[in-house]
Amino acid sequence: MTVGPRVGGYKVYQGGTLFPDLRVPFRQVDLHPSAGEPPVTLYDPSGPYTDPTVDIDIARGLSGLRAGWIARRGDCAVVDQPRQVRPEDNGGATGATLAPAFDNRGRVVRRGLKGRPVTQLEYARAGIVTEEMEYVAIRENLRRAATDPALRDGEDFGASIPDFVTPEFVRDEIARGRAVLPANINHPELEPMIIGRNFLVKINANIGNSAVLGHVADEVDKMVWATRWGADTVMDLSTGRNIHNIRDWIVRNSPVPIGTVPIYQALEKVGGVAEDLTWEVFRDTLIEQAEQGVDYFTIHAGVRLAYVPLTARRVTGIVSRGGSIMAKWCLAHHRESFLYEKFAEICEIMREYDVSFSLGDGLRPGSIADANDAAQFAELRTLGELTRVAWDHGCQVMIEGPGHVPMHKIKANMDEQLAHCGEAPFYTLGPLTTDIAPGYDHITSAIGAAMIGWFGTAMLCYVTPKEHLGLPDRNDVKTGVITYKLAAHAADLAKGHPAARLHDDAVSRARFEFRWEDQFNLGLDPETARCFHDETLPKEAHKTAHFCSMCGPKFCSMKISQDIRDAARSQNDGAGMSAAEITAGLAEMGEKFRAGGSAIDVAVVE
Amino acid sequence: MTVGPRVGGYKVYQGGTLFPDLRVPFRQVDLHPSAGEPPVTLYDPSGPYTDPTVDIDIARGLSGLRAGWIARRGDCAVVDQPRQVRPEDNGGATGATLAPAFDNRGRVVRRGLKGRPVTQLEYARAGIVTEEMEYVAIRENLRRAATDPALRDGEDFGASIPDFVTPEFVRDEIARGRAVLPANINHPELEPMIIGRNFLVKINANIGNSAVLGHVADEVDKMVWATRWGADTVMDLSTGRNIHNIRDWIVRNSPVPIGTVPIYQALEKVGGVAEDLTWEVFRDTLIEQAEQGVDYFTIHAGVRLAYVPLTARRVTGIVSRGGSIMAKWCLAHHRESFLYEKFAEICEIMREYDVSFSLGDGLRPGSIADANDAAQFAELRTLGELTRVAWDHGCQVMIEGPGHVPMHKIKANMDEQLAHCGEAPFYTLGPLTTDIAPGYDHITSAIGAAMIGWFGTAMLCYVTPKEHLGLPDRNDVKTGVITYKLAAHAADLAKGHPAARLHDDAVSRARFEFRWEDQFNLGLDPETARCFHDETLPKEAHKTAHFCSMCGPKFCSMKISQDIRDAARSQNDGAGMSAAEITAGLAEMGEKFRAGGSAIDVAVVE
Repeated sequence: MTVGPRVGGYKVYQGGTLFPDLRVPFRQVDLHPSAGEPPVTLYDPSGPYTDPTVDIDIARGLSGLRAGWIARRGDCAVVDQPRQVRPEDNGGATGATLAPAFDNRGRVVRRGLKGRPVTQLEYARAGIVTEEMEYVAIRENLRRAATDPALRDGEDFGASIPDFVTPEFVRDEIARGRAVLPANINHPELEPMIIGRNFLVKINANIGNSAVLGHVADEVDKMVWATRWGADTVMDLSTGRNIHNIRDWIVRNSPVPIGTVPIYQALEKVGGVAEDLTWEVFRDTLIEQAEQGVDYFTIHAGVRLAYVPLTARRVTGIVSRGGSIMAKWCLAHHRESFLYEKFAEICEIMREYDVSFSLGDGLRPGSIADANDAAQFAELRTLGELTRVAWDHGCQVMIEGPGHVPMHKIKANMDEQLAHCGEAPFYTLGPLTTDIAPGYDHITSAIGAAMIGWFGTAMLCYVTPKEHLGLPDRNDVKTGVITYKLAAHAADLAKGHPAARLHDDAVSRARFEFRWEDQFNLGLDPETARCFHDETLPKEAHKTAHFCSMCGPKFCSMKISQDIRDAARSQNDGAGMSAAEITAGLAEMGEKFRAGGSAIDVAVVE
Repeated sequence: MTVGPRVGGYKVYQGGTLFPDLRVPFRQVDLHPSAGEPPVTLYDPSGPYTDPTVDIDIARGLSGLRAGWIARRGDCAVVDQPRQVRPEDNGGATGATLAPAFDNRGRVVRRGLKGRPVTQLEYARAGIVTEEMEYVAIRENLRRAATDPALRDGEDFGASIPDFVTPEFVRDEIARGRAVLPANINHPELEPMIIGRNFLVKINANIGNSAVLGHVADEVDKMVWATRWGADTVMDLSTGRNIHNIRDWIVRNSPVPIGTVPIYQALEKVGGVAEDLTWEVFRDTLIEQAEQGVDYFTIHAGVRLAYVPLTARRVTGIVSRGGSIMAKWCLAHHRESFLYEKFAEICEIMREYDVSFSLGDGLRPGSIADANDAAQFAELRTLGELTRVAWDHGCQVMIEGPGHVPMHKIKANMDEQLAHCGEAPFYTLGPLTTDIAPGYDHITSAIGAAMIGWFGTAMLCYVTPKEHLGLPDRNDVKTGVITYKLAAHAADLAKGHPAARLHDDAVSRARFEFRWEDQFNLGLDPETARCFHDETLPKEAHKTAHFCSMCGPKFCSMKISQDIRDAARSQNDGAGMSAAEITAGLAEMGEKFRAGGSAIDVAVVE
């Protein structure tokens, strides 16, 4: 497992004001002294793994950062008799096939007390700013001062992004249902984060074993690895055996919210036969996972019986695993699913642990041909109805979205979602903007993801290069995460998020000033950037060279225009120069250059 | 050098109607017999290299496909005394440092006769449909029949994409200046292609040695390699020594249009000192390269003296190599550049060989911070003025665009270009939508490229993963080309190009029907797709497996929804079924499933 600081930066923490004991983490990058600039602060979801002062032991799990906050609020009680692990929770695995259990001795399971607030939504509605809310407010601001509104730029399509995030703003956004702070009270190891249209766009990475592959350590490693590169949440989509035990290892070691699709495990419990699924098995699975500490559940309650025939003429039918399972169940029983019929009971269970809803789009399109069709939009309206039911129960809600959508049909997805789901955060998979590039679907989908993020999607579920072809390995996970980080950031820039452009501008200045190390370190992947540079100009001296191998020393435009500017500045200190003065200065400069021959020729560092 | 057919497809040719001897190439992919579908025809810019019946010898060059057409038209004459190669053309390289010359014995140089049409624009205006025009009309239609307008879908922002491309439509688009058919009369080896908003979006790959790296064979190989994966044109951006000889090898072996930036070579001829550039040296270089057969020249004539000070406060100054060279010249001489002052003479030279203009955006932004600024848009207006001058001289013109632009500022680039440049084709570099991901700029820019392509850009210049860091190697070239192919295709889909969705739908059907080999072969990169699949499910039997390693056999949504559909079909042949009938059929089916237990459980192929 890769732990320790990431190259080029180091961990810093900031305390709270309302809650002084908060330690909100950031990744800070120092610049070369020649820059004359303060360090750049970046968002950091990697948890204690990148803090060299923390002793990591995955057998022990992370420390319970939030345990004291939850206890202090006094709204939860320890469950006397938590649900015990049963053989079917691990698909009946025994002996050598059974993954080792996480050592839960000493761990308690909590549940909300009757009549008390327990979800962040309930606290927010009650006017209470929680520790989690101040934490995410600090986190979102990236240690910058409030931005001068005059400097902001962007098209936010009706969002309400503030110049500076206050704890009260966070509370208000959660109270309105416009943001979700996924934080199961049984996942105290979590470093709080927020998902909402008026905050930084987040990304999710999927991990999970399937019937074909998967081991405990590999899955924990993938989670740590994904957050190391920037995943804000992780979904454990394991199927097959050992999913209870694997999930325990993941949750106990995860600094980010963990999402699951409980129907997968429920299906395993009934031997993989969709028709045999029952409310009782599903309910049991919800409690099992809620007690483990899963932070959000994908629930495909919008797959209604009447919508299934709408998929009959599709090119790719139903492509959501959960959606197809529920469609099969609905048809077999010719009735609405228990997810839909028992939705209020599901809400009651999830509220008690503050598990957030991620209402699944079981009928999302699986191809360009099927985008924005009747089945998809019918389900979306039902998800809107269910959102209101969940809110009435005090539950936090986000809505899942497609999938495969050509560019001209992306905005309609966001518009429909906003119109029908009361501004609950949208959480989309891609979307892929073409189907012709298997092996490159991280890119076909990054195009759609950046666009829908710009339009208002709050979290983007990553797609790796292996999409449609196989299970992602470590490299694929990293590629997927970085691709989605850049897409999310492009969305933040276009929305005019006040914290976004500081990062781009820092890279651009480093580039213009040939601070190669700064350019590498400020990038999303310093190692790869450095490695690419070194393939053609490996010498250490070239790290300060005023050119690169792309154009060579004589043709370096940046060098030439820097020379032009430096010369102009030497005429005048530059402060308050009018355009006319600059022109005059440059003209005078022109005379000098002419007289002096190649006075501004490039100085080559070798 | 990699030659021979690409995996999964084979070369086919189609003849002409006006010109029966045309042989327009396509790549055709046969599908598995179970599909019951005809082969899929794809656009193929790879030239004779992928035709196993052609004997390739780069020392001889490709055969002169267009030589007969040009001779038959009788509008050009052989130049008695073509320009002879001089030592400065190769940067003074001698002996072992001099790249071998291409053997040009037997080759003639042509030039248009006075008073006769020579450019495709002049023919088009005269109402003449050339061989090249019918060739590209056939090429654009991809061997499909005219599309039913009712089936078309998309948002084209005011473009005029026809249901079917006729030679007359091509002629008209060229005559209006809305499309460019770059085809120097001295590049008879060229397979004609067209660049315009109402045609398929094209992509360009840059190659070229720099002072740091570069060898003859490597550059020819990169050109062949880039076109193999889908590059529609190639720009040779070589600087340093041997550029004349390397260019000769490239042009003589290139089936796609070759573009250059003549100022690079001119600068070499004056020892790299921008201020020493003269009109005479530049003019000589234009003739040298026009006689070699270069199809389009980037000319940075829009960098006017008054615009240079507008870049003084930029974060990244001037980032175009040509732009910075000309800015330096303008300042040093304190006058307008010879490119601007002698523009009419440049037009006269380029017209005689039908070299197309690619009016360079020397002041394009090099960072998010500098996007859409006064310098950039001032230059764009000047490019619009120059477009009209070039058109008056009978020259074909396209306009280069940025660069680095956040998503919310992309559309303004297209709108300004359309407003000021008379619908001359736009040819953009990316644009990159964020600066924070060095090493991943093929992706940061594919987002912007897909969007600006949708908005109306006719050709997208690729960006490789090495952008800002180093010179691309073979793998980078391939990654860049495929990334841009998918971005261009996403743009075609969103514009509603009638040929675009056929490809996606073929992939989607293959995916839904578990025709793995078809999915691989129809993809942009069959080898990579197959390799990714085989990493987790390597057995041959799995190529027909009705699941993949992502979900495993039990959770395969496609399999489940196929089972649902097959069962519904068995109730009814499906023809003319109403939604109500399908519902009834699915309901009845539901009863059967329930009675039969797991009747539709997944059949696992092992």
